[in-house]
Amino acid sequence: MIKIALDVMGGDNAPISNIDGAIDFLNHDADGIVKLYLVGPEEEINNHLSKHLNLDLRFIEIVNASQIITSEDSPARVFKTKPNSSMNKAIGLLKDNIVDAVVSAGNTGCLLSTSFFNLGTIKGVKRPALFAVIPSEKGNFLLCDVGANSSCKPEHLLQFSKMSSIYMQYQMDIKNPKIGLINIGSESNKGNELTKQSFKLMDTELKNFIGNIESRFIFDGLADIIICDGFTGNIILKLIEGMMEYNLNLVSSKLNLKESPIINNIKELYNYEEYGAAPILGIKGLVFKSHGSSSKVSILNALKTAKKSYAINLQDKLTNL
Amino acid sequence: MIKIALDVMGGDNAPISNIDGAIDFLNHDADGIVKLYLVGPEEEINNHLSKHLNLDLRFIEIVNASQIITSEDSPARVFKTKPNSSMNKAIGLLKDNIVDAVVSAGNTGCLLSTSFFNLGTIKGVKRPALFAVIPSEKGNFLLCDVGANSSCKPEHLLQFSKMSSIYMQYQMDIKNPKIGLINIGSESNKGNELTKQSFKLMDTELKNFIGNIESRFIFDGLADIIICDGFTGNIILKLIEGMMEYNLNLVSSKLNLKESPIINNIKELYNYEEYGAAPILGIKGLVFKSHGSSSKVSILNALKTAKKSYAINLQDKLTNL
Repeated sequence: MIKIALDVMGGDNAPISNIDGAIDFLNHDADGIVKLYLVGPEEEINNHLSKHLNLDLRFIEIVNASQIITSEDSPARVFKTKPNSSMNKAIGLLKDNIVDAVVSAGNTGCLLSTSFFNLGTIKGVKRPALFAVIPSEKGNFLLCDVGANSSCKPEHLLQFSKMSSIYMQYQMDIKNPKIGLINIGSESNKGNELTKQSFKLMDTELKNFIGNIESRFIFDGLADIIICDGFTGNIILKLIEGMMEYNLNLVSSKLNLKESPIINNIKELYNYEEYGAAPILGIKGLVFKSHGSSSKVSILNALKTAKKSYAINLQDKLTNL
Repeated sequence: MIKIALDVMGGDNAPISNIDGAIDFLNHDADGIVKLYLVGPEEEINNHLSKHLNLDLRFIEIVNASQIITSEDSPARVFKTKPNSSMNKAIGLLKDNIVDAVVSAGNTGCLLSTSFFNLGTIKGVKRPALFAVIPSEKGNFLLCDVGANSSCKPEHLLQFSKMSSIYMQYQMDIKNPKIGLINIGSESNKGNELTKQSFKLMDTELKNFIGNIESRFIFDGLADIIICDGFTGNIILKLIEGMMEYNLNLVSSKLNLKESPIINNIKELYNYEEYGAAPILGIKGLVFKSHGSSSKVSILNALKTAKKSYAINLQDKLTNL
């Protein structure tokens, strides 16, 4: 039995979307081999569950947690100020080996700090990293780091590359994923100190390094993995979201398609948030971050991702960088 | 008479587009008060000019230059390796007070270094900066720096803000332009060391500072000026270009609009390259960088921009930061 803890109170649409996503997962995708630990206010969870008939309660355990982490909570202090938060309790279950993985759509900084302080990092990993898989017509690509580390050293980027490579290979079934370094020019001597030094290190250490890649070409299918510091990655990720929204609204306005479902279909198709969750790379334990505005579909997909990661032994593979 | 030197050999479409843009400018926008100095291979320029009838040669001077700077030339060495380049000779005319402004679509790094070494910076300016004005439905905005300085200090970002502000105010006629700092969160304590420190400095020193702005909101019309280091700005600028192209191609493909001119019209409308050129802020002298792939329309617009900057005394305004 695979055991996954879900932070019921994490995310903008908690707890309803989270519980609904969990139920859909159990009904359609758990294959009778996954038990979910729903972590949050027991009474509220029970109330909502009672509305659903035909639930097989052997696959659900409720773990009471009275506190809720919000977007205003400080990652540095939340550990002390809210020890009974649903997030902290879910991570605690993983620490105590009661569950095999955790899924949360809660405050990213708090999830990072809570995971880091409770679980620590995989031996040899200097910095845990966050990534996003971006859907693209010419092949989805993984962008890392997208915000865990706003300042980085070349050795960090090298580790991000290796961990991302393992994820793409085993979880996403991309053989020999190609790795590019985001930079402001294609030549090896271009960029700031970080990218210049990182280029040399990555070029020496990574078999599938294809060199620098300019941001205008990231959708061209050149690289499966795109590496950068977390400040740059966060800027890129949010600009992709903003531009997609802006450009599609612009077109729908110019073409008088405001009432048409076509534009919305495209938005949904290319909304990376729908693609589930991503594990925090380098943490000693499978902790999955789902987008803050997760719908029940996102939660469902996050649980599917967690299930697969556990089934393929992702964590073991990450320990042999 | 306003005298402007045009680097005839700069850019991917040189010399034809450059000369054609110059002729269109003289015929329609120079109002008989601008004289153009066409800098490049004399014979080639004369050959092309001879195809155009009705040219009033009082407004054209040809300055021979035998060497051409390419995209492969090194900014650090080009000054020595190609002293007779059209770019270097054009800047030389400005240094010798023969012309009032220079327009070039050539190698950006070389234009920066050539301007810097020949002309120096405005007193007190620590780093010259490049910017781009990005067209947007909710109000065009200026993005600075877009690549002149891949590493910056807070005081540099403050100066970029002040110089950009003067440009928006006098050249673009935006009263009290609002200034935002690109960051990975809206709160003042978010970001890397540079943005955290810059926030404090800008908040203290700038009257129209509106705080941090996340990349997903740059098209929302919140700020007229968006400030960042040149690495980040270059990543943003190129991602905007790439995303616009990618998104519009995606939509035209999904809607079967490949043969429709509508999508291309949108592309052109939002192509910032068409909006002419931008002066290198902080250089002692008006040097305008036009996009490398400048068409004759871009060159025409660049010359119009240069003419206006001179007419409004932009350089004088920039000397009183």
